[in-house]
Amino acid sequence: MSAKAWATMNAVDIITKKKDGKILSPEELEYMVMGYTRGEIPDYQMSALLMAIVLNGMTREETVRLTEIMRDSGEVMDLSGIKGIKVDKHSTGGVGDKTTLIAAPIAAAAGVPIAKMSGRGLGFTGGTVDKMEAIPGFRTSMTREEFINSVNTGGIAVIGQTGRIAPADKKIYALRDVTGTTQSLALITSSIMSKKLAAGSDAILLDVKCGRGAFMKSEEDARQLAEWMVEIGNAAGKKTMAVISDMNQPLGRAVGNALEVIEVMDVLKGRGPADITELSLTLAGGMIMLGGFANTMEEGHAKAVSLVEEGKALEKFREFVAGQGGNPHITEDYTILGKGRHILEVKADRDGLVTGLDAMAIGLASQHIGAGRARKDDAIDMTAGIILNKKIGDKVNKGDVLCTLMGNDSIKIETGAAEAMGAYELGSDAPEKNRLIKQIIE
Amino acid sequence: MSAKAWATMNAVDIITKKKDGKILSPEELEYMVMGYTRGEIPDYQMSALLMAIVLNGMTREETVRLTEIMRDSGEVMDLSGIKGIKVDKHSTGGVGDKTTLIAAPIAAAAGVPIAKMSGRGLGFTGGTVDKMEAIPGFRTSMTREEFINSVNTGGIAVIGQTGRIAPADKKIYALRDVTGTTQSLALITSSIMSKKLAAGSDAILLDVKCGRGAFMKSEEDARQLAEWMVEIGNAAGKKTMAVISDMNQPLGRAVGNALEVIEVMDVLKGRGPADITELSLTLAGGMIMLGGFANTMEEGHAKAVSLVEEGKALEKFREFVAGQGGNPHITEDYTILGKGRHILEVKADRDGLVTGLDAMAIGLASQHIGAGRARKDDAIDMTAGIILNKKIGDKVNKGDVLCTLMGNDSIKIETGAAEAMGAYELGSDAPEKNRLIKQIIE
Repeated sequence: MSAKAWATMNAVDIITKKKDGKILSPEELEYMVMGYTRGEIPDYQMSALLMAIVLNGMTREETVRLTEIMRDSGEVMDLSGIKGIKVDKHSTGGVGDKTTLIAAPIAAAAGVPIAKMSGRGLGFTGGTVDKMEAIPGFRTSMTREEFINSVNTGGIAVIGQTGRIAPADKKIYALRDVTGTTQSLALITSSIMSKKLAAGSDAILLDVKCGRGAFMKSEEDARQLAEWMVEIGNAAGKKTMAVISDMNQPLGRAVGNALEVIEVMDVLKGRGPADITELSLTLAGGMIMLGGFANTMEEGHAKAVSLVEEGKALEKFREFVAGQGGNPHITEDYTILGKGRHILEVKADRDGLVTGLDAMAIGLASQHIGAGRARKDDAIDMTAGIILNKKIGDKVNKGDVLCTLMGNDSIKIETGAAEAMGAYELGSDAPEKNRLIKQIIE
Repeated sequence: MSAKAWATMNAVDIITKKKDGKILSPEELEYMVMGYTRGEIPDYQMSALLMAIVLNGMTREETVRLTEIMRDSGEVMDLSGIKGIKVDKHSTGGVGDKTTLIAAPIAAAAGVPIAKMSGRGLGFTGGTVDKMEAIPGFRTSMTREEFINSVNTGGIAVIGQTGRIAPADKKIYALRDVTGTTQSLALITSSIMSKKLAAGSDAILLDVKCGRGAFMKSEEDARQLAEWMVEIGNAAGKKTMAVISDMNQPLGRAVGNALEVIEVMDVLKGRGPADITELSLTLAGGMIMLGGFANTMEEGHAKAVSLVEEGKALEKFREFVAGQGGNPHITEDYTILGKGRHILEVKADRDGLVTGLDAMAIGLASQHIGAGRARKDDAIDMTAGIILNKKIGDKVNKGDVLCTLMGNDSIKIETGAAEAMGAYELGSDAPEKNRLIKQIIE
């Protein structure tokens, strides 16, 4: 932006323009976002603008520009040292969602280079990075050279996201959280996509969740968000597609860091729960297609199935763990992950059918027993978690175990058990079938 | 509010509720406004709430409550020591508006007790308090006892508004100014009325301006604001009415503190300009009616005319000046007010009719030559100002004096002259007649 354009702008005029429902120019967006990131625009002006954006919306063109400005506010990873089409994957977040750790090794086994940055979790359970750290020895921080070498050698590496990626988003996200300005398609899209664009891959597969355990409650809201993200990703030069999937009940049967790593390996061995298996193979198929190793999603899916059946996916996972310093024997010996000192079974107080299993409530219970963070500097109990012995549609007799809680804090587990109990709805009528994979948006 | 209700509330929920277009409870409004006033709610949350209020609006019930909460955030004047129905007057602000200093002495001469608090000006010219201080010796600060005694003795006193009146409004007003959240009926209404209610009079006469020199540009917007203020005033137990008047061109011929005091005395002597005389007599009539000394506005107006004709209004003004320490000879000797060292006449560069006279431009010119403040601690040049020799509808020959600038800073006067010149529009077709008094809202 020219110094002249900058000098003639002021925050109140720009806020007023958006308040009046007008479209902000790229220069005006840059003035506000970068001014705010540098501390020249105060919080109170940015929050007024954010509320005006939430209520009056932004066009897709404004959203593309906002995304690019936030991407360029920090480091943009240069992955050109890695051969092939690098494919990234992002989930909007759910309970029991360990699909990255399954789909990424499968895609890598197909030849797709995976150079992934992942966040730590704040909420129900840890993020991908936290889950990997449940494996003794696993390192998620490495230099850029080590990272690029790892991918060129082993085909896959996952590192923690640095603070240098999209600092504008980091600051705005924190402000939105405390000013009631989270619910905006434009703001959610630009927040997610700015980080994905800065992470440097060539293509992006998005897993957009909907349901009671997701930020987007309805399929329609999820579809809108998916369409925006796909359009913004493509507009910014990355081939982007999205899968919309169900998050009414948790994915799979394991919730909690070490427990989820075990389930990851079970799926890679072809003996995991049906739902997490199906979704992971679909996502892997999409990544394989985006990476140029299949012409269609179906072809990609078929390749993924073969790679699991032939043991190549599990082998790639083992290499990946070993490559980042983790104990590779983990695939044969789950006890390496350790176990919580306390176990508590939650039992049904009557007969019935499971008609509902509130993902949000299970997520909160798992956080409360130590599997997730309430605050950024909380420690995670890697062994804490919940096994869902019964899921929606299962028949239950009085006294059957509904779920099993484990971890190192017996008092927290007592509290979590009551919450987990409350997550189960028992009825007599068979619940409606809920399709796991709802739509593919390209 | 109960401690329990307070403990269970949080700012983000309340902001989100208003963002979603819902109605806030009295307790929620109090939580936000008083929390903000005490510094417990940060600026950025209040500005997000303000933007949500601007865009989603507030009901009249919410506005009444907000007004009462802001009123009760500071000192509420107790004027019960003054006999009779105390009548206050408020103008939404315009250029050349000196009606308070005319209407208040007339109403006082009719027997209405006037115990008025006035603000200092920030903008085009000084406020009522600044204008009075153009009179040598005039004091606008006194103790509460002196104030009440003055009204009981002389029937009228005007003091500067203290910082103890409606501190919540003061803080919110300052935030609105820098966050693009000024334009809201609910927020404007509650800001004005909270101070009026705290000022302690029994009845309130509002002068709501509309036109290019006013905050409300259209008569329709002014009518809406007037209706809201009248309803909120009455709901809070004060008999309230409003006059909507034109502010396309400045009122009267004098703009500037000392110059306006001279025009005030001219009107009280029955020889002032027609427009300011008409509006002042209408406002005085309204105050006389509200004070119980007339049954209708017309009867009040007739009384006001008689009081001016009989010299009783001017006499009351002289008593008022003397009572607050000012030189009472001012009514016979205007030179007591002093005079600017520099005078500059702005002349027409062609023949024509004055078809427009931009009140806003004249206001800015007067501020720039020293008659008003740009910042709170700027000093005012009491002698600085503009005499409008020509107004809308006047015929002009090339070389005729359009207006005369005066003050103590010759360089500022040169700049101001160019601005004042730009305020005049000369044309050939007679301009449409613009009614000065547009509506009365009771």
